[in-house]
Amino acid sequence: GVKKKIGMLPGDGIGPEVVAEARKVLDAVAERFGHTFEYAYGDVGAVAIDNSGDPLPDHTLKICEESDAFLFGAIGHPKYDNDPSAKVRPEQGLLKLRKSLGLFANIRPVTAYDSLIHMSPLKTEKVLGVDLVVYRELTGGIYFGEKGRTKDGAYDHCTYENFEVDRIAHLAFQAAQHRSKKVTLVDKANVLETSRLWRERVTLIANEYPEIELDCMFVDNAAMQMIQNPKHFDVILTENMFGDIISDEASVIGGSLGLLPSASVGDKTAMFEPIHGSYPQAAGKNIANPLATILSAAMMLDHLGLVNEAIEVRNAVNSSLKIGMVTEDLSKKEGYGTDRVGDFIANCIA
Amino acid sequence: GVKKKIGMLPGDGIGPEVVAEARKVLDAVAERFGHTFEYAYGDVGAVAIDNSGDPLPDHTLKICEESDAFLFGAIGHPKYDNDPSAKVRPEQGLLKLRKSLGLFANIRPVTAYDSLIHMSPLKTEKVLGVDLVVYRELTGGIYFGEKGRTKDGAYDHCTYENFEVDRIAHLAFQAAQHRSKKVTLVDKANVLETSRLWRERVTLIANEYPEIELDCMFVDNAAMQMIQNPKHFDVILTENMFGDIISDEASVIGGSLGLLPSASVGDKTAMFEPIHGSYPQAAGKNIANPLATILSAAMMLDHLGLVNEAIEVRNAVNSSLKIGMVTEDLSKKEGYGTDRVGDFIANCIA
Ligand SMILES: CC(C)[C@H](C(=O)O)[C@@H](O)C(=O)O
Ligand SMILES: CC(C)[C@H](C(=O)O)[C@@H](O)C(=O)O
Repeated sequence: GVKKKIGMLPGDGIGPEVVAEARKVLDAVAERFGHTFEYAYGDVGAVAIDNSGDPLPDHTLKICEESDAFLFGAIGHPKYDNDPSAKVRPEQGLLKLRKSLGLFANIRPVTAYDSLIHMSPLKTEKVLGVDLVVYRELTGGIYFGEKGRTKDGAYDHCTYENFEVDRIAHLAFQAAQHRSKKVTLVDKANVLETSRLWRERVTLIANEYPEIELDCMFVDNAAMQMIQNPKHFDVILTENMFGDIISDEASVIGGSLGLLPSASVGDKTAMFEPIHGSYPQAAGKNIANPLATILSAAMMLDHLGLVNEAIEVRNAVNSSLKIGMVTEDLSKKEGYGTDRVGDFIANCIA
Repeated sequence: GVKKKIGMLPGDGIGPEVVAEARKVLDAVAERFGHTFEYAYGDVGAVAIDNSGDPLPDHTLKICEESDAFLFGAIGHPKYDNDPSAKVRPEQGLLKLRKSLGLFANIRPVTAYDSLIHMSPLKTEKVLGVDLVVYRELTGGIYFGEKGRTKDGAYDHCTYENFEVDRIAHLAFQAAQHRSKKVTLVDKANVLETSRLWRERVTLIANEYPEIELDCMFVDNAAMQMIQNPKHFDVILTENMFGDIISDEASVIGGSLGLLPSASVGDKTAMFEPIHGSYPQAAGKNIANPLATILSAAMMLDHLGLVNEAIEVRNAVNSSLKIGMVTEDLSKKEGYGTDRVGDFIANCIA
């Protein structure tokens, strides 16, 4: 067995409940495969502001820095919803985590599960067979450029350097080698200079992967094609702001946000996070769907090189879907509690 | 009758064919209502580059400046598709028109026509009854900020001034007064300073319209809601780049781009344009759908204060849909030619 340090950042809303279920699953994996997972818990988001005035306390950042990987629940609380100008806000914790830890690539697979296709807002023939992954640049662009006010206005600077484009482009092309060998670069190269830079660099890098087809698409067109013809996409590569929009758009086509995991990787540690939010209305009710967090834990296992372990977790999730051992959001009947679903999956593995 | 100067910029691909049909319809309106429309034609886009080396020749700009309003077909040619870094490109003509003429508000209504709902990629219950309009800021933001290269990178600056936000916000709130009294501001105020400026200004302006409800939504969430629950939206107000993405996304939910018009208005003249592109594969085949351009002409008539005339045009379009006098893209059978559809609508009015 191996020994790994795993950070746990449950965060706000349903975060603690879904992270608790993923923990059960990780414990079952450790037990079954003889690994040792050392966990360290830290506050982040609104709960961290409440406890210490800081959405990302130093203690939490240190846990992450020292981890081989960490799981992140969700952040956000309604009390911050109406004032995006507030000095201290939960999402600053997330942005600072990304930047401080150099988590430059956000990886978001979107798979349409056959058994959930009836829940998709799209017609079945559009969404059946969708299997794509977004590689979103996460530490550059307009998110982290200089920003401020002038006498009568405001500004945000979007900048990209070659190396920032290159490193995530390589990840996307490498991923494409194990998939259907196609990368779609999403940009706005007919208007933006940063997008022209992306296109140049990515076209250069594509030469190093002669078996991969590179397809370039303007972001407005991509927003249309994602609805009109989502099967067009396999690996999507894009900058930070476009990735935020396109990956969220993609996330609803499968029918349930409750199943979508994500990874944010850098050169050192990596973060794994369900893409749903803190969903405060559901907090404390034992109704939150833990599957996206459990699948995020599976991505974490893959990242740690524990590939068979990840397969076990995914198989267990598929079993829970097959027999209907799922929470109410996925169920035609009453639905099971968050904890029951987690127990079932952990038991499948044990 | 009134006298109006109308610019005609057919542009590329199917542009000339669809503009020709809108011209027939405008002629029928002039005849029936005793108006005089003086037309002036100018080149724009790829055809203008071919003819003069300039995507927006001075002659064309002058026609637009002197017009009460002008109709724009489409621009773009496949020979420019693979090189968004080319020095001279068709879309520069469009961007320069917007900027030179101060066309600061792009207005894009999206209506789901009952008879076309079967063509929507979305399930019927999602899209039935959708009736929204996007107010996109068109002469500011990252499109027109400083842009360039550094030694190892590139940058684009996004800036907004108060007056740029205020003037389009007023248009959006005024539009909401004639609709269901709700404005959704789409921004990214949890990350961008320009978005925080938008939220502050728009919240201030909302006070002047106490009967209108203002709802603020992050752009990533808006991209999801547009698929998940498009009926949530009525008037959408947003900045240039987000408007580009969200309005294109919205345009596919109704089932056909071939019916969607747009207006780009400023303090002086205004431009009217189908939202579909130049669709070069269809050019010269008499199969292009002229309805979006004809409905753009209807928006033009409204803008010129010819409200009853606009209603006549819309009624005629509805008749053509009802009896199936439509081009092949909308038809279960063979479909009629572009010219036949235009003739039918002109005849309805005459
Ligand atoms: C909370 C917010 C800052 C964040 C982002 O825009 O990156 C979120 O939308 C996401 O995609 O993880
Ligand atoms: C052609 C391009 C510059 C343009 C834009 O991005 O504004 C187009 O996409 C549009 O929306 O009219």
